[in-house]
Amino acid sequence: MSGRLYIVGLGPGDTRWLTPEAQEALSLAQDIIGYAPYVERVPKRLGQNQLASDNRVEIDRAHEALERVSAGRVVAVVSGGDPGVFTMAAAVFEAVDAGAPHWRDLDIRVMPGVSAMQAAAARFGAPLGHDFCAISLSDNLKPWTLIEKRLEHAARGDFVIALYNPASKARPTRIVDAFTLLRSLLPGDRFVGLAKSIGREKEEIILATLDTVDPAQVDMSTLVMIGASGTKHIPRENGRDWIYTARAAS
Amino acid sequence: MSGRLYIVGLGPGDTRWLTPEAQEALSLAQDIIGYAPYVERVPKRLGQNQLASDNRVEIDRAHEALERVSAGRVVAVVSGGDPGVFTMAAAVFEAVDAGAPHWRDLDIRVMPGVSAMQAAAARFGAPLGHDFCAISLSDNLKPWTLIEKRLEHAARGDFVIALYNPASKARPTRIVDAFTLLRSLLPGDRFVGLAKSIGREKEEIILATLDTVDPAQVDMSTLVMIGASGTKHIPRENGRDWIYTARAAS
Repeated sequence: MSGRLYIVGLGPGDTRWLTPEAQEALSLAQDIIGYAPYVERVPKRLGQNQLASDNRVEIDRAHEALERVSAGRVVAVVSGGDPGVFTMAAAVFEAVDAGAPHWRDLDIRVMPGVSAMQAAAARFGAPLGHDFCAISLSDNLKPWTLIEKRLEHAARGDFVIALYNPASKARPTRIVDAFTLLRSLLPGDRFVGLAKSIGREKEEIILATLDTVDPAQVDMSTLVMIGASGTKHIPRENGRDWIYTARAAS
Repeated sequence: MSGRLYIVGLGPGDTRWLTPEAQEALSLAQDIIGYAPYVERVPKRLGQNQLASDNRVEIDRAHEALERVSAGRVVAVVSGGDPGVFTMAAAVFEAVDAGAPHWRDLDIRVMPGVSAMQAAAARFGAPLGHDFCAISLSDNLKPWTLIEKRLEHAARGDFVIALYNPASKARPTRIVDAFTLLRSLLPGDRFVGLAKSIGREKEEIILATLDTVDPAQVDMSTLVMIGASGTKHIPRENGRDWIYTARAAS
């Protein structure tokens, strides 16, 4: 078999969201490459190499994978969620673009997955029923001013907003800054959903508003969802309230 | 077994993107309810009812499902893609919100799926590697002026833009209007990807720019993706070029 690169989305959390396509790619791969917590989620197979690496070395991982594929190996680069959304797929194509010309001839296939935003939405009810956007709050690779600009357009455009990478040890106050900015643009009763460790054992779903949300509850494993004007609330006796965004808008 | 409602995403196209969670829900359901082309994709099971309905009757379908669940039945409402993104999940919660108070006590579970935007992105390369938004161009349920406002904020905020429902027989020129508006705000060399009938036999992937895209190629089954300033192009000798959005931005 000649070399092939699968860029595989594992979905958030456990295997209930792993697509048959992704499952097949994992079974065909000779080498599994990824950030350690994702590689650990792939069942070990006899004769298959697992190469786990640290966070923030996406380009190194991409190079490693492309070199192995060039040498004729079948490689799967794994990500949580959807590899096309803020993660390894863009890093691989960035490496191809800047790398050896023959890398452009390689057989590279992206296998989409359920992204954290979608799994979170499913738990909240249906907040993504209307126009929405996804913004990464990480300012490792872009200036904070650009993030502020996007938050502002998202708020003024009345989009539902999903925030990825809302916090980290290196930048614990970014989510506070984001909430402060959004409070200056939107009514305080806008719904805010926090989905923590979605699909994992310690999953936690918290529903609040811009006025009441506690930024201390937001960590690296949290997907933050901010409602639009059409996002509505269905209280329930069991306390597991739903939110949804009405399909009609005026 | 007491009643339960599964709101199931089939993913785009064939079963390669159907999650194990969705597969299980389909096997447990006594009744399958949905728009006819989606219901047809569910393998028939002995003793399981399939109730196919027309397009644009989402609320009727939701009522039918909720009444059956109230009566103790296990029902799956099916959608293509992700039911949380512009489709049946919001319709069901809208019906719950406006309906009988006891509907709030029902066991309703949303099963996320791969959305058309993600499957399309996987074919194009990695255009969703940076901040993006999703906008439905359908003005059945919202005024066109609101869609224009959102397109403008999406363009000014430098988001990658995924357009759902870009055309229909009832409004064939909306995509022309959208491209005209975007051309007034963005450089003409912005990449535009068209993913037609994604995941199906007649799938077709077309890469163009705002200047060169042919709106006549956009139909109901097309997902339209418009690049941001950081979206780059990798030409390939086989003609199957890639686009990706760089993770870094300035």
